[in-house]
Amino acid sequence: MTDLEEPYALTATEALRRVEAGSLSAVEWVVSCQERIRQREPEIQAWANLNRRVVDETEARSRQGQKPSIPVGVKDIIDVCGLPTMMGTDFHDPTPVTREGGSVAIMREAGCAIMGKTVTTELGHRHPGPTRNPRDTRHTPGGSSSGSAAAVADLMVPLCLGTQTSASVIRPAAYCGVIGYKPTYNDFDKSGILANAPSMDTLGILARSVDDVGLLRQILLEGPAEEIRKADLSGLVFGLLSGPPWETADPETRDLIERFMGELAANGARLVDVRLDREIPRLSELHRLISGYEFRRSIAFERIHHLDRLSSVLREGRLADGHQVDNREYQSAIQEVTALRMQLAQTFAEVDILVSPSAAGPAPATLETTGEPTFSSAWTLAGNPAITLPLFSAAGSGLPIGCQFIAGFANDDLLLAASKWVMDVFGSG
Amino acid sequence: MTDLEEPYALTATEALRRVEAGSLSAVEWVVSCQERIRQREPEIQAWANLNRRVVDETEARSRQGQKPSIPVGVKDIIDVCGLPTMMGTDFHDPTPVTREGGSVAIMREAGCAIMGKTVTTELGHRHPGPTRNPRDTRHTPGGSSSGSAAAVADLMVPLCLGTQTSASVIRPAAYCGVIGYKPTYNDFDKSGILANAPSMDTLGILARSVDDVGLLRQILLEGPAEEIRKADLSGLVFGLLSGPPWETADPETRDLIERFMGELAANGARLVDVRLDREIPRLSELHRLISGYEFRRSIAFERIHHLDRLSSVLREGRLADGHQVDNREYQSAIQEVTALRMQLAQTFAEVDILVSPSAAGPAPATLETTGEPTFSSAWTLAGNPAITLPLFSAAGSGLPIGCQFIAGFANDDLLLAASKWVMDVFGSG
Repeated sequence: MTDLEEPYALTATEALRRVEAGSLSAVEWVVSCQERIRQREPEIQAWANLNRRVVDETEARSRQGQKPSIPVGVKDIIDVCGLPTMMGTDFHDPTPVTREGGSVAIMREAGCAIMGKTVTTELGHRHPGPTRNPRDTRHTPGGSSSGSAAAVADLMVPLCLGTQTSASVIRPAAYCGVIGYKPTYNDFDKSGILANAPSMDTLGILARSVDDVGLLRQILLEGPAEEIRKADLSGLVFGLLSGPPWETADPETRDLIERFMGELAANGARLVDVRLDREIPRLSELHRLISGYEFRRSIAFERIHHLDRLSSVLREGRLADGHQVDNREYQSAIQEVTALRMQLAQTFAEVDILVSPSAAGPAPATLETTGEPTFSSAWTLAGNPAITLPLFSAAGSGLPIGCQFIAGFANDDLLLAASKWVMDVFGSG
Repeated sequence: MTDLEEPYALTATEALRRVEAGSLSAVEWVVSCQERIRQREPEIQAWANLNRRVVDETEARSRQGQKPSIPVGVKDIIDVCGLPTMMGTDFHDPTPVTREGGSVAIMREAGCAIMGKTVTTELGHRHPGPTRNPRDTRHTPGGSSSGSAAAVADLMVPLCLGTQTSASVIRPAAYCGVIGYKPTYNDFDKSGILANAPSMDTLGILARSVDDVGLLRQILLEGPAEEIRKADLSGLVFGLLSGPPWETADPETRDLIERFMGELAANGARLVDVRLDREIPRLSELHRLISGYEFRRSIAFERIHHLDRLSSVLREGRLADGHQVDNREYQSAIQEVTALRMQLAQTFAEVDILVSPSAAGPAPATLETTGEPTFSSAWTLAGNPAITLPLFSAAGSGLPIGCQFIAGFANDDLLLAASKWVMDVFGSG
């Protein structure tokens, strides 16, 4: 069924190399992805809407001699001209939008072929969409960037945009066995994206190679195309985050990560132990309060005009959380985050990369929930860049288990460099 | 022409009192504002779009026994269901939007009657719209919340929403002789609002009384209706901000503020001198770099798809600024702001209210520009709450000159309490 020689199975970096060498055309690449989507979509249900004009758009670009088109998917809480933004509900306006997000316009300008909109959970929150995990369709793909993770994992597109307010890039990527990258807060433009909790909402990338992450990152930053340098591991300090929530991970996950730390050391990395016993639980609690407060008002339109169309998990969960603090407590929580961010900067003066589970274990065997954000929410609020790498798999099921790396604020270059080295050495296993 | 006994001339607080006492109906109030708009709009041009259904909406609310409708205007970079969002350009989609900003939905729920969309400069930036200053129509109303300031000043509505990224609430309010309030950063929800520079974009209020500011503030916070307490001046420390940019203000403005400080002291306030010689110029420079970088990508859609429809002041100004830093410099500037915010908190441990000009002088005699953001941009980036009070007027022209108060981060209550006291004592002059 899956032919790894087909263009759809390539990473974007490898396909671009073939396009430049003349052995693949941009149109062939897009058509191959389209064909893959056609075959697999009935089973996976990763797409909310497909762009029916993408081949025409790609042909037009090719005729004009423009940069080759890179097929991408865009999470359906992000506005894309010519497609509706349904946000995982059944009541939003199905009219195609006429102004698109800054990051989408920037991607389009750089040659990305937008294949369509990927399934999101309801308003980027917990209530799941129809998407299934391509590794085992009885399991959740994770959320809220469910379709983006599944589409990349299932070789429908090499790259997707996702967003993360709690764990919505890291968790689905880990569950589906792909790379999920949440950059430093505000690294990529967020205009034209449904606001969830703006103080932590972050646009991220789902991909199958670190080079592809770097490729799309440079596009989104409108920076020069530059290859990710590979870190020299002997110069790096890795810290196992052994304080909370470490103990809540499955024994198998902990065991895999502990063994991996040993392998890092064997390859020259220096290891330290980091706990952050006070900071992480406090950030997780502040995340709950701040995101609840902000989410409640970000979706005031839905809450006020369409309350009866929202899921009970949303009405009884986040919307109720939004009542727990008032404005004064909210602003005081925001100030506490500022202080915590400065404290974390001291930790990252002594450690380059923190290592943590991406989730407690592999994707749960359910399509009713998308899992817990335990291992990400503190870092999303802190704003540090994080990535999940598909390094492990569960012994019984073979389902993927991710390993999360976290770097200092704005130190995305180092995060990707270390990730590239690790994927080159351990990624094939 | 202007009958101060007409409902349109009342503050919202006073009109609501009459509605509750039964001497004014909500519909009469809305119709009175509508009539005022009809009379004055040809001269002032404060409105981009009027809500033709507002009387019907108000009648429906009255019939259902709901809370009385407060007439408000909404800056035309904010989405309002049933009206298009034109953002001060001629190329955006004139179709009415179907999802509105969180703050708009919250206001609607609380009974605000949305009279229409007020004129904004092009994309909330510098290129002016058609609005004139009601105090002298040869003068600019300031920008970018031009229509909001003019509509409130000209008694068309008691309250408007504006937004501030540099000085876009404070300056037009000062030029038009009304109160402009920019709350603490992120105090009000910003969903459904055109992003300019999200790290500092702030939704604010234009009004003719401090009580009205407090009224709409509580609505936007979905908090309990509570009257603004009046500060006891003898307990407060006021600091004249005599460091930069103080010297760039007109001699008349400085003289008025210095005399006012004397009057504050005579009324029991303690005075101190505050300079912030390093912090303010650095914040102003960081504002220029960060807002340039963020604005360039927030409006990527317009820049990429409609560049030829943008003004030259935008193309050659902000869009060029956006090239001055790369992503690494941007994130390092963001971290510097965090450190500066914590330093400013130390200043506000010793002073309650900083006093500064709202602008260098009265509104310039031009409709070609909207003035300079010199006295606000540092504070917008720092996130502190600020308010301009219409305390003074220019000796020759009689044009209004504002006085700006700035309080510590999240200390909006104190800012409004001090403002209420000052307006009660000095406001009629």
